Amino acid sequence: MRLTFHTDYALRMLIFLALREGEQTTIREIAEAYGISRNHLMKVAHKLQQQGYLHTTRGRGGGLSLARPAQDIRLGRLVKAMEPDLALAECFGPDNQCVITPHCRLKGVLGKALKSFLDTLDEHTLAELTGRGARALKRDLGLIPVRTA
Amino acid sequence: MRLTFHTDYALRMLIFLALREGEQTTIREIAEAYGISRNHLMKVAHKLQQQGYLHTTRGRGGGLSLARPAQDIRLGRLVKAMEPDLALAECFGPDNQCVITPHCRLKGVLGKALKSFLDTLDEHTLAELTGRGARALKRDLGLIPVRTA
Repeated sequence: MRLTFHTDYALRMLIFLALREGEQTTIREIAEAYGISRNHLMKVAHKLQQQGYLHTTRGRGGGLSLARPAQDIRLGRLVKAMEPDLALAECFGPDNQCVITPHCRLKGVLGKALKSFLDTLDEHTLAELTGRGARALKRDLGLIPVRTA
Repeated sequence: MRLTFHTDYALRMLIFLALREGEQTTIREIAEAYGISRNHLMKVAHKLQQQGYLHTTRGRGGGLSLARPAQDIRLGRLVKAMEPDLALAECFGPDNQCVITPHCRLKGVLGKALKSFLDTLDEHTLAELTGRGARALKRDLGLIPVRTA
């Protein structure tokens, strides 16, 4: 069980943008800071924009920024918006062929566990990921110089 | 986010065996009842045996059976035993390249959500999946004839 790469990258992209709140950021900057593919990040940014998580401004001086304050971004809702289907087992999908589906209780139990997962994530916001420790994260991402003694 | 096919098949295999408690079952019977690949099921049976969930008896009249009572099989532990890693995001894996790992709180939050998922599954046993409704499930699987009016 894994989140998709797109969800993983979306979380990292939003962490980056939260650390630069109020500034414009380019996809190139984020791709270089994390060492990940620009092409993937472009797709992720597109989906995040569709879902209302980020603004894009075109042209010179343009770029990406958070569409809402980091403290209003709940992580469960974000994961749910980014994952393509959360189809934990075959019985969740549209091509379900499992013959016991009409009388099986597994889907209900898995659905309850999935709800626990998302509810726990919803107890946390993007702001919590970037609040305490923001300076250290900015250093990890090369946004401020590493202090040398 | 999906369980692997192996975990999905393991759950279905154990449901089948729980419905036939006390009898020997062959992989062919399970594969035919669900319409899924025997090869995959052989790998799944091997792992389930390694993890102490089933017994295999060789030879004529041999087959598979549950190694413990269905009411002692908790679903969270089973999923944990069958999933290859539960590496929700890159920072959980051995090849983690994410530069913010030293100061990022995401792994802790995702780990807490994963624990909620598995704890919720652990509130349920295999016996609950096959108790009430066992006759209907047996009919779905062709283990008893469908009643016609």
